Amino acid sequence: MSRIDGRDNQDTREVKITKNYIKYPEGSVLIEMGDTKVICNASVEERVPSFKKDSGEGWVTAEYAMLPRATLDRNNRDIQRLKKNNRSVEIQRLIGRAIRAVVDFKALGERTITLDCDVIQADGGTRTASITGAYVAFVLACKKLLKDGLIEKMPLSAYVAAISVGVVDGEVLLDLCYEEDSHATVDMNVIMTEHGAYIEVQGTGEQAPFTRVQLDALLKSAEKGIQELIEIQKEVVEA
Amino acid sequence: MSRIDGRDNQDTREVKITKNYIKYPEGSVLIEMGDTKVICNASVEERVPSFKKDSGEGWVTAEYAMLPRATLDRNNRDIQRLKKNNRSVEIQRLIGRAIRAVVDFKALGERTITLDCDVIQADGGTRTASITGAYVAFVLACKKLLKDGLIEKMPLSAYVAAISVGVVDGEVLLDLCYEEDSHATVDMNVIMTEHGAYIEVQGTGEQAPFTRVQLDALLKSAEKGIQELIEIQKEVVEA
Amino acid sequence: MSRIDGRDNQDTREVKITKNYIKYPEGSVLIEMGDTKVICNASVEERVPSFKKDSGEGWVTAEYAMLPRATLDRNNRDIQRLKKNNRSVEIQRLIGRAIRAVVDFKALGERTITLDCDVIQADGGTRTASITGAYVAFVLACKKLLKDGLIEKMPLSAYVAAISVGVVDGEVLLDLCYEEDSHATVDMNVIMTEHGAYIEVQGTGEQAPFTRVQLDALLKSAEKGIQELIEIQKEVVEA
Amino acid sequence: MSRIDGRDNQDTREVKITKNYIKYPEGSVLIEMGDTKVICNASVEERVPSFKKDSGEGWVTAEYAMLPRATLDRNNRDIQRLKKNNRSVEIQRLIGRAIRAVVDFKALGERTITLDCDVIQADGGTRTASITGAYVAFVLACKKLLKDGLIEKMPLSAYVAAISVGVVDGEVLLDLCYEEDSHATVDMNVIMTEHGAYIEVQGTGEQAPFTRVQLDALLKSAEKGIQELIEIQKEVVEA
Amino acid sequence: MSRIDGRDNQDTREVKITKNYIKYPEGSVLIEMGDTKVICNASVEERVPSFKKDSGEGWVTAEYAMLPRATLDRNNRDIQRLKKNNRSVEIQRLIGRAIRAVVDFKALGERTITLDCDVIQADGGTRTASITGAYVAFVLACKKLLKDGLIEKMPLSAYVAAISVGVVDGEVLLDLCYEEDSHATVDMNVIMTEHGAYIEVQGTGEQAPFTRVQLDALLKSAEKGIQELIEIQKEVVEA
Amino acid sequence: MSRIDGRDNQDTREVKITKNYIKYPEGSVLIEMGDTKVICNASVEERVPSFKKDSGEGWVTAEYAMLPRATLDRNNRDIQRLKKNNRSVEIQRLIGRAIRAVVDFKALGERTITLDCDVIQADGGTRTASITGAYVAFVLACKKLLKDGLIEKMPLSAYVAAISVGVVDGEVLLDLCYEEDSHATVDMNVIMTEHGAYIEVQGTGEQAPFTRVQLDALLKSAEKGIQELIEIQKEVVEA
Repeated sequence: MSRIDGRDNQDTREVKITKNYIKYPEGSVLIEMGDTKVICNASVEERVPSFKKDSGEGWVTAEYAMLPRATLDRNNRDIQRLKKNNRSVEIQRLIGRAIRAVVDFKALGERTITLDCDVIQADGGTRTASITGAYVAFVLACKKLLKDGLIEKMPLSAYVAAISVGVVDGEVLLDLCYEEDSHATVDMNVIMTEHGAYIEVQGTGEQAPFTRVQLDALLKSAEKGIQELIEIQKEVVEA
Repeated sequence: MSRIDGRDNQDTREVKITKNYIKYPEGSVLIEMGDTKVICNASVEERVPSFKKDSGEGWVTAEYAMLPRATLDRNNRDIQRLKKNNRSVEIQRLIGRAIRAVVDFKALGERTITLDCDVIQADGGTRTASITGAYVAFVLACKKLLKDGLIEKMPLSAYVAAISVGVVDGEVLLDLCYEEDSHATVDMNVIMTEHGAYIEVQGTGEQAPFTRVQLDALLKSAEKGIQELIEIQKEVVEA
Repeated sequence: MSRIDGRDNQDTREVKITKNYIKYPEGSVLIEMGDTKVICNASVEERVPSFKKDSGEGWVTAEYAMLPRATLDRNNRDIQRLKKNNRSVEIQRLIGRAIRAVVDFKALGERTITLDCDVIQADGGTRTASITGAYVAFVLACKKLLKDGLIEKMPLSAYVAAISVGVVDGEVLLDLCYEEDSHATVDMNVIMTEHGAYIEVQGTGEQAPFTRVQLDALLKSAEKGIQELIEIQKEVVEA
Repeated sequence: MSRIDGRDNQDTREVKITKNYIKYPEGSVLIEMGDTKVICNASVEERVPSFKKDSGEGWVTAEYAMLPRATLDRNNRDIQRLKKNNRSVEIQRLIGRAIRAVVDFKALGERTITLDCDVIQADGGTRTASITGAYVAFVLACKKLLKDGLIEKMPLSAYVAAISVGVVDGEVLLDLCYEEDSHATVDMNVIMTEHGAYIEVQGTGEQAPFTRVQLDALLKSAEKGIQELIEIQKEVVEA
Repeated sequence: MSRIDGRDNQDTREVKITKNYIKYPEGSVLIEMGDTKVICNASVEERVPSFKKDSGEGWVTAEYAMLPRATLDRNNRDIQRLKKNNRSVEIQRLIGRAIRAVVDFKALGERTITLDCDVIQADGGTRTASITGAYVAFVLACKKLLKDGLIEKMPLSAYVAAISVGVVDGEVLLDLCYEEDSHATVDMNVIMTEHGAYIEVQGTGEQAPFTRVQLDALLKSAEKGIQELIEIQKEVVEA
Repeated sequence: MSRIDGRDNQDTREVKITKNYIKYPEGSVLIEMGDTKVICNASVEERVPSFKKDSGEGWVTAEYAMLPRATLDRNNRDIQRLKKNNRSVEIQRLIGRAIRAVVDFKALGERTITLDCDVIQADGGTRTASITGAYVAFVLACKKLLKDGLIEKMPLSAYVAAISVGVVDGEVLLDLCYEEDSHATVDMNVIMTEHGAYIEVQGTGEQAPFTRVQLDALLKSAEKGIQELIEIQKEVVEA
């Protein structure tokens, strides 16, 4: 059985990462996974939050948002409701944790890198696309710091990418689009390093609990997709 | 090697669930896991959010908060900063998803049950204690609805409990207290049904990525803890 | 005529003050007056508001809130409406004023004590119970400061307690429960020291103006109740 | 000993109430008590809050605020801090209660009268001046409703005025200006009807507890002042 | 054809500027243009925003608001909606820009002057009345600074006033009242110096685009009005 | 003298309007004027604000925002400060007024079109680019409504575009980039129809008042630029 867009179950959508998409940020990419499009900007600022003051260490944080019409129906802006969207809060915490897991804060020095992930078009998998794109923007910003002599070595221990997997109509699918995601009984986001270690595993039985057998199949599918994404990240960074 | 509080690695802390703790809610418990204490109240309201209007189906939602001095240092109240704490947002979304996974919304009818989890003393594992306690409060509220003739059958498919596990000094520990949690390299929260199916698995390599072997050991440890918690839930509900 | 709960007009409800209720605060009690239950925590912080900077003097402030289901119907949390409940604002200002009236700010030194009064179950008289409980939490925190050698003498000039009185069906009642309070034509809160001096008197003709004769009877009733409460406070502190 | 502005202890400051001060409101006055100046506008709106819907009864509410430079130093506007000033919250609740105590809600019919008290210059006693002025604005609005045939009788049972009294340097003073208020050891606000009944008594020992003898002297002083204010209110209304 | 209030097309309404209207501000006026009444207070504070720190230069900023019942219908206060009114934001930015255009920030020294324009009664032209009044309050504050020896010369290069003009029923009218403004097809606000130079020109085709011929006629009308206003400003300042 | 980017004084930057940029909105373009890039989305919703209810007429409104790193330095998001940026408020009001000036609300029918202008890269002239782009997005949305049979004729009376002009070093320049804008002594935004009528003229003497001669020269320059932009709009719409 082929999928809604003709892919095989273990195929990712077409992935495109455009480097230096916005001209001002220290690192910037547009990541496209199928129709999901996210601008990921890495901004370097020479200050740290109070809990890092005088520690000699830096910090990395993330913000995630969607344009009002990134989705089928228009959503009000956060400022209209005076409240950051709850889903966005959860996602930006995830992005920050994911990247921080491979950062060497000593090597980064006392500065903050903020990763802004702004979804301009959403078609499923925006949080994982944000992580995959933010990682590249982060590397680009670090390369700039290195080139400018502000740091002595790249403050990163491994490439990181993320992908969503899920169970739809009893089958394990890789890289769900929105239509598939809305019918999934199990939804899982996996973040891994290039060395195959897990940074975060989040699996949810949205409509029904899931079994250990399903969990294993989902992890295997995700691993395949992530390794492909990391290949693309490397090509973009090194281009 | 024994743990900071003398427990073995696969021991949970002492668990105590006090039924009908607050007199007004339809369901109410105080859950204590060691020094972690959470008041879980289930409130029934005869209205549903707009996306459930005229659907014949009900809804379940959760709110999580900590008293300012539930922790070692005093935290400002959310209202002081005009912003719900980001961590609390993430947790209350998790609690809501966890309970909804076993709810039969048709059987519940067009009403909303709100699960308020207020941590009065925090010593690690507050989100998993909240889920375990909220489930009992939810069952109590449903039993009241059944007794009052407002529903015809219990709108629940399985008992649900949650526990935290983690890797500390290279060892897999069950039910981490705060001190242990702050030294864990891997932190995982697992939510399961009485039938051993997963509702949510969230594993994070807080300080370093983790391996598949660790993931498997953590899941096994969590399963043991959850089955013990479900025994206690059943005793409390049936008492 | 006996009251709704069988008490005589000049009886208080059963009063119970549990010392060291929460483990982290410098002072902590659970005060119960009948079914009204308030957690009162006193937190010491080594900083003062800007108007006390470099004055050598300390400060005392209070915050008051209710859990969403402390009442018969569920109330939304303040953060939901982005606005501190107006009644809570009025009450926390009263608690702060009441305790500050007997504090020796020089003896306290340049530090702030915050008195958090969180109502977990409300059945009338929550503001006066909060004052009576907060005073004990405050004393406990001061005793800890004294024991730790941070202050040289107790920074307090007198015990303080508070109680509500009112006119219901033409009779003066002491310590109104919620049911009585909602039928009272006059409602008065009195805060006194152990020496019988007034700290605050607030009388309101909720449904009708009141006479001087009623005012005198209300003050007499309140004085009786407060002296009983101060006895209990002393026993708890000295236990 | 004469006072800072030459008054005797039991003298009020010069009182002036300008009727129809703003042209749009149904009732409007500027009240001046010495240098304290408050614009009091009564607005009639043909709707009631939800708890009065279909009750056949009306509602009265009040809002109180100060212009940023009504005081010696400039204060930020509430909207700057996204938070209604706590003192203003307390005061506007007091104004609303005070007027509601003499309103016949049935006679008012299902409409709301909002009493906006905006202090343009503050020199002590702004809350009591607001009540005294708001009462007149309220009467004017009711007279307009009566004239327009929207109500059948005046929905008010008695004239209401308010004044502050206090103990300064051991003496009981009537109608304190800001300078006196800031040195008072006891501060009391009294709201009474033309028939000498109390609507609200709020006495605070700001710097020290106070005795019953002081309480009695303060009430006597306030009564004198209020009767004078009510004479002036009547002249203004009937002019 | 004469206007709604009997004026000729090129007449302004009666203008009255009352000096030292509020006693605390360094500069204060009440400006009345017909039934439009605005309190303009200039407050001097010995601090500057961060972008002027250590620059040796001062800053001027403005805030604009209306009392809830300055208009025919009552408007909620900004703090009720937790949001500064959008129209007010636009206007206060305009007032600030207008005055800053003639300020010598070096001569002012490192201090901030805040111009609070509070409309107590609105009948059209509140933004231009605010600018004309705020300019006078600003001059008065500067004269005080000069008199107190805090500055060495007046930090102002020219008198500034503003007026509204518009096209109503095809005719160019000067100084529109609210009734006229609500029927205008073109609405223009002009801010000029005493030397006839423009500080700001804002013309809007509210209901239809406008021609170059109309633009020229509107500018001519505004110039006449502004020169009259500046005469009045000078008389008030020099009185 | 040629300009910073080699243009002649009366040249616009390169203009590019990409149609159907985002897939979900009823109308969507990316407009690029040099390095200024704005996503303009027009969303149709079948509801109107309360003041248009049951009027048979529609409404058009606009929202404007910048991504945090659209600029050289990173700006915090509005939601971080719980306050819509004041400059953005002013701009979105301008965009809404500009488009509404040519809309036939009867022909639009009772529906709302929201024009979201999100600046992803800012290099001067973002407000005028937003208007020029939003107009095209609006036309595209109307064409869709027409095609879908929801309206009977295009509800628009004329093409509209906008451009900035300014005086830099004494010379009148068309379409200022950020570097030029920051040195301009006069800054003007002009909005015109294809028929050469003005919709809005906003000229500001940012650092010095300006003369009538300058005003005339600025208007002439703007007219040239706008006619060029309207040619491009027409090509895009008709392509």
